[in-house]
Amino acid sequence: MKLHLLHQCVFPTIRLRSIIKLRGSSFSTSASKREGGVSMVQGASRGLGLEFVKQLLVKNSQEHVIATCRNPNGAAGLIELKNKFSERLHIQRLDLTIESTIEESAKAIGERYGHLNLLVNASGILSIPDVIHPETTLTKIERSSLLLAYEVNAVGPILVTKHMWPLLKVGGGVGTERDVAVVANISARVGSIGDNRLGGWHSYRSSKAALNQLTKCVSVEFARKKDPVICILLHPGTVDTDLSKPFQKNVPKDKLFTKEFSVQRLLGIINSSKSHDNGKFFAWDGKEIPW
Amino acid sequence: MKLHLLHQCVFPTIRLRSIIKLRGSSFSTSASKREGGVSMVQGASRGLGLEFVKQLLVKNSQEHVIATCRNPNGAAGLIELKNKFSERLHIQRLDLTIESTIEESAKAIGERYGHLNLLVNASGILSIPDVIHPETTLTKIERSSLLLAYEVNAVGPILVTKHMWPLLKVGGGVGTERDVAVVANISARVGSIGDNRLGGWHSYRSSKAALNQLTKCVSVEFARKKDPVICILLHPGTVDTDLSKPFQKNVPKDKLFTKEFSVQRLLGIINSSKSHDNGKFFAWDGKEIPW
Ligand SMILES: NC(=O)c1ccc[n+]([C@@H]2O[C@H](COP(=O)([O-])OP(=O)(O)OC[C@H]3O[C@@H](n4cnc5c(N)ncnc54)[C@H](OP(=O)(O)O)[C@@H]3O)[C@@H](O)[C@H]2O)c1
Ligand SMILES: NC(=O)c1ccc[n+]([C@@H]2O[C@H](COP(=O)([O-])OP(=O)(O)OC[C@H]3O[C@@H](n4cnc5c(N)ncnc54)[C@H](OP(=O)(O)O)[C@@H]3O)[C@@H](O)[C@H]2O)c1
Repeated sequence: MKLHLLHQCVFPTIRLRSIIKLRGSSFSTSASKREGGVSMVQGASRGLGLEFVKQLLVKNSQEHVIATCRNPNGAAGLIELKNKFSERLHIQRLDLTIESTIEESAKAIGERYGHLNLLVNASGILSIPDVIHPETTLTKIERSSLLLAYEVNAVGPILVTKHMWPLLKVGGGVGTERDVAVVANISARVGSIGDNRLGGWHSYRSSKAALNQLTKCVSVEFARKKDPVICILLHPGTVDTDLSKPFQKNVPKDKLFTKEFSVQRLLGIINSSKSHDNGKFFAWDGKEIPW
Repeated sequence: MKLHLLHQCVFPTIRLRSIIKLRGSSFSTSASKREGGVSMVQGASRGLGLEFVKQLLVKNSQEHVIATCRNPNGAAGLIELKNKFSERLHIQRLDLTIESTIEESAKAIGERYGHLNLLVNASGILSIPDVIHPETTLTKIERSSLLLAYEVNAVGPILVTKHMWPLLKVGGGVGTERDVAVVANISARVGSIGDNRLGGWHSYRSSKAALNQLTKCVSVEFARKKDPVICILLHPGTVDTDLSKPFQKNVPKDKLFTKEFSVQRLLGIINSSKSHDNGKFFAWDGKEIPW
């Protein structure tokens, strides 16, 4: 790491730590707000994750963003952003299916920034040719698809939350408009059991229902421990990304959102979220979705 | 297989098939009722599963029961029942984590009985010393526990449902008090996301929420195809079995049910269930549980 970068990144951390020590549980001070927040976007190589990184960097000129992805060298969109926002963007390798990469990320972020104010788990899988297909009938379900979707969509984000928790507790809302740090897990309306009227997509639906339950578990613990951290679940709408591409033909044009629109709405929800939102499941329009 | 057993088991199947052909969608006839139903209990070596087998055999002197378990030679309770109800009880090896044993079970049941009227998925894991522990905090969650609980509690029952579906479609309610065949998946109230106020037990809760979603998916397809089959989810209450043993000390005495009581209640719900119950989640007292 270049020396000037080291200074820029590590110094605010030390100042934040003393603020926290001095002011106890009051994490939000005008002094600390000037620092800008530190946000992590997990699953940032493309799609909604990449758009989160972009908007976070553009909208707040003091914000630092850690973008994680499986293959940093192949993440063209992130490399482009890195050229533009070199000092405020840090790209970190993280593969949800390899827990050591999550631990290494937590260590690297801890050393570099000392805290986190936002974690967006934006990764997800629905279909991968020759690996996982959204099931149209019970007869097509396969053990391997069910397990893979669960591992990536439910287990992964919760392991990331586990390893980033200490950093989020230190961060709280310091340097942001909020009182609390936020874990935003991108779920999907089709993960709702109560709203499931069409059936199908067993692996994906089941993994997202599981993610919802795991997030709820975590929210209960955050509240009980009085941590300055909340976690919420977000449904982005149907958004024009690689994930939705194979299924767009039956989506009315005005129901297919751009990444820009969806992430703008989701960031609006995240930035205005309060303690009482902990454990809730919101759609892009701010309305709650039933379990 | 002894010849007299072969006769006894295969013959009613042939008769049932002609009844179905003759009467179209009217599966319930007095002639067929005399045959008694054919029920399968998956996860029958002990606990609630074993009690289901016992009560099904005792309550209907014409009912045939297939009891599946991982290790038939070690299933003392089932062997005891086999000595008493030799002709009406068939023990079949099935390990949820080995799909070939599920396929072999479907083939064996198809050849022996030709149909099914009831499938109870009664298996389940919560804690296994040195393998899986109910998590008390986020910091204790482990990838391996999450995956194992999901595989056994969610994936397994759905794979069994997949492979038994053709037999359930043939069976419908024929030979029973019902109009429909029933798939009863034993879930748990702690699988409810809406009802999750205590947190913890991440692996178990998440796997049961996933089972609920998968069962909901299946119910939608059963309804759309107008199959004479429904699937429901059941919460047995807190019941005195090996599964609950390590957690009983905080349970008030009147809230810890015997297996006999719980299964009696659950069989009451199963036997009186109708098409409109498809996809619902019932507690032992017949009340619906929120998702
Ligand atoms: N698009 C929609 O209409 C829609 C609707 C509802 C919910 N969602 C949810 O929104 C989230 C984002 O979806 P999207 O539309 O942006 O999808 P996308 O364009 O397909 O992007 C998926 C992202 O997940 C990453 N990922 C996959 N497996 C991973 C792993 N093992 N470790 C780390 N990262 C991994 C991908 O990285 P690689 O580049 O390395 O593959 C990629 O960055 C997902 O949770 C999705 O379920 C999307
Ligand atoms: N007891 C309660 O208070 C309670 C409360 C709510 C929900 N439930 C649910 O009720 C159901 C029955 O629980 P229980 O109390 O009867 O538990 P139990 O006494 O521990 O019995 C569990 C059963 O599951 C079987 N099983 C485990 N792994 C299996 C696998 N891979 N393949 C096939 N079978 C497997 C076991 O077989 P082996 O003998 O081979 O291990 C055993 O027959 C479970 O779904 C449980 O989650 C129980």
